[in-house]
Amino acid sequence: MEHIQVMGVQGLPLIHAGDNIAAMICERVPVWDNDILCIASTIYSKARGYTKLLSAITPSERAVRLGNLNGEDPRFVQAVLDASTDIIMEHPFILSELAFGHIGVRAGVDQSNIEDGMVIFLPPDPMKAADEVRAEIRSIAGVDIGVIITDTCGRSFRRGQTGNAIGWSGFPAIRDFRGDTDLFGHVLKITEEAVVDEIAGFANFVMGESNNGVPAVVFRNCPKWTGHDSLYFTNNEDITKRVLKKEWGQ
Amino acid sequence: MEHIQVMGVQGLPLIHAGDNIAAMICERVPVWDNDILCIASTIYSKARGYTKLLSAITPSERAVRLGNLNGEDPRFVQAVLDASTDIIMEHPFILSELAFGHIGVRAGVDQSNIEDGMVIFLPPDPMKAADEVRAEIRSIAGVDIGVIITDTCGRSFRRGQTGNAIGWSGFPAIRDFRGDTDLFGHVLKITEEAVVDEIAGFANFVMGESNNGVPAVVFRNCPKWTGHDSLYFTNNEDITKRVLKKEWGQ
Repeated sequence: MEHIQVMGVQGLPLIHAGDNIAAMICERVPVWDNDILCIASTIYSKARGYTKLLSAITPSERAVRLGNLNGEDPRFVQAVLDASTDIIMEHPFILSELAFGHIGVRAGVDQSNIEDGMVIFLPPDPMKAADEVRAEIRSIAGVDIGVIITDTCGRSFRRGQTGNAIGWSGFPAIRDFRGDTDLFGHVLKITEEAVVDEIAGFANFVMGESNNGVPAVVFRNCPKWTGHDSLYFTNNEDITKRVLKKEWGQ
Repeated sequence: MEHIQVMGVQGLPLIHAGDNIAAMICERVPVWDNDILCIASTIYSKARGYTKLLSAITPSERAVRLGNLNGEDPRFVQAVLDASTDIIMEHPFILSELAFGHIGVRAGVDQSNIEDGMVIFLPPDPMKAADEVRAEIRSIAGVDIGVIITDTCGRSFRRGQTGNAIGWSGFPAIRDFRGDTDLFGHVLKITEEAVVDEIAGFANFVMGESNNGVPAVVFRNCPKWTGHDSLYFTNNEDITKRVLKKEWGQ
């Protein structure tokens, strides 16, 4: 078996609206069939213009109240509210759900790695974003790869952020072991592994968070898997969401 | 910059109490200075004998009650209670805290990949476990590596399990960006990245969960980082733990 190789895409410039990030990546690394390309959601959103000037945002009454409560710019809070379909927790930070199912702190709205006075939104449809990048790579380089759009998120119980997948194309999110047996022939009870998040997490490690400018990572020779795309819990299944919403009276 | 390489350790036999897993790994893969070796907690626990026969366990009243409630063998439930220092949630599954700070489903007690009628516990001191394996590799192969002991855990909001770090040696758990600036010179707000969990997650992907028998993974040419080891929230910081405990009246 060939070793897995993981390559940060070095030398990408600052991304601006209209940039073709697929082409910029293909100019810098050779991309092969079956590679997996992880892209930070920030560069996709900047290239597609999912950004806003804070000065163009008028905060609502709720945004002013939550801005005071959490010590944040009410215009930034308004951007978070605009990006959210369901507010799960208001304080000490806003935790909310987005239309595509992801639950994240401040709806993933970011003020880092962008010009002063601007915010970056998560792509509104990250599955489509991953499909698009994959199709562009196919058209530029003639290869069929997998794509993951990554975001950085906190978690319960453990300090620190990790990379998560918010969009993917070319494989299912979850590796499903249902029906598989263990080393002793027992049918496995724990049957679902969130493979796209495990790959996105390692990509995030390779990217770094600050100013080293490696917002894309290529994985080669990864094992294949089969499964399904139901990465997000339904309301009924999501115990943490239910008790958090109850606690904050939402 | 050299590419990162990731190598599953192929061909390890079933592990038994008394086995020297460090030596068994070194016989199968070349390990170099600065490599990171991820080891599934199950093989460490089996080698060190952190296992128990279900028939040797007498369930308490509480274990019988929770076994009935959750449809589980009361002796298995007793093993989970024995491994826990704090029960956070009793139903639909036990979520509990272990002495070393980790919060996990069923306290990480496992009935997979072990003989019928037995359970595997997480190592009681996984930091010491990582130190031990690292020292053994140094003594066998004369190289200084990093070691991560991994476990597989569910999470809030997202379906599927991912690999997490429960013990580590040779580097800090958290990459700390405090004081760093972003591409535009802003001081970063989000300053802590749980690097050991991101590496453990990808190792878990390479390991697989079922019967392919790759319980150890070697990473080469990873970037270095600095930071700290406070991977677990304090009670005061842990919002999810607090509301879950309140909901279940603990």
